[in-house]
Amino acid sequence: MPAFDPDERDRGWTYRTLTSIVVPRPIGWISTTSTDGVDNLAPYSFFNVATTDPPTVLFSPGRRSYAEDGRTDTARNARATGEFVVNLVTGAFAEAMNESSATLDPGESEFDHAGLERAASTVVSPPRVAGVAAAMECEIREIQRIGAHELVLGEVVRFHLADRLLTDDDRVDVTEVDAVGRLASSWYDWTEDRFEMERPD
Amino acid sequence: MPAFDPDERDRGWTYRTLTSIVVPRPIGWISTTSTDGVDNLAPYSFFNVATTDPPTVLFSPGRRSYAEDGRTDTARNARATGEFVVNLVTGAFAEAMNESSATLDPGESEFDHAGLERAASTVVSPPRVAGVAAAMECEIREIQRIGAHELVLGEVVRFHLADRLLTDDDRVDVTEVDAVGRLASSWYDWTEDRFEMERPD
Repeated sequence: MPAFDPDERDRGWTYRTLTSIVVPRPIGWISTTSTDGVDNLAPYSFFNVATTDPPTVLFSPGRRSYAEDGRTDTARNARATGEFVVNLVTGAFAEAMNESSATLDPGESEFDHAGLERAASTVVSPPRVAGVAAAMECEIREIQRIGAHELVLGEVVRFHLADRLLTDDDRVDVTEVDAVGRLASSWYDWTEDRFEMERPD
Repeated sequence: MPAFDPDERDRGWTYRTLTSIVVPRPIGWISTTSTDGVDNLAPYSFFNVATTDPPTVLFSPGRRSYAEDGRTDTARNARATGEFVVNLVTGAFAEAMNESSATLDPGESEFDHAGLERAASTVVSPPRVAGVAAAMECEIREIQRIGAHELVLGEVVRFHLADRLLTDDDRVDVTEVDAVGRLASSWYDWTEDRFEMERPD
């Protein structure tokens, strides 16, 4: 099996390789509000659970050479306000999620660009995407620079969960979650092609 | 849509909810070697790319009340040696990956328990799983405590990529990567149910 030293490869190769073998990645569809009141929305797949206690998620926006401060709108807004909302991308929202990844002027909202309605959050200021199956309101606990990215850690202060995901005792039934996963380049995957393996003792 | 305050729910509910809506998660099947020379292997799905430059991945092992130092074998070995290897879990290795999640005595190797062969690494000491489609040799750059977990950041110092994944110019073709994704409880998903969406300008 061929071995590759990343020091001998360019950044494009490294990006392509990492995003192709660290798959499937969950998509954090993240809404933030700028200090000017513009609601931003963008998908991030360098996203996961950081810890379950206290419930904390992380995402890692890349540095952007075209921005004066080197940040995406999401990273800038999150840093400035300390708040973000993670929206779940299920099949019905795949197209809108993709639309929201267009590069817009910071003054233009991806909610409006993608034709999405806002739903008010309970604790934080950024709105949720109306109609999504789940959303998490988050307060930022830490931001740290990691190479060409910034690692943002946010504690979940409110979960919004659609009735259709819930069992009678208010737990999520994962087989009802038709999430979209991120692969590489223009590829995504559905999570409905599931299988079970019982964990050994 | 019902809203839930995690402060009013128990840890089991929070764990179940996060792992059910942050999906699909990539699986880092992580090999480490203890200071006593025992090769450990275990799957982690709180795993993702941290940054692509320098190529860096992260994973977040949970604290373990049954261990004297509160750490999983993987976390203990990674901390002690500064090294780990991430092995890609494709369809052919799904069962073995599940076997390797059994709770064994620290002196027993999951390689042997799951009947897996070792392949020598190039730069680091922990072995790769022989026959996997991709592996990343990593050197630890940082470990930090985050609530009930520890966030481990490792820089990739060597990529191993099977010929079957590669295009003629040595780039990974993601449609050849039949990775297994993690959902919740006993559920996993295949990534072969793919679709394409071109990113807008």
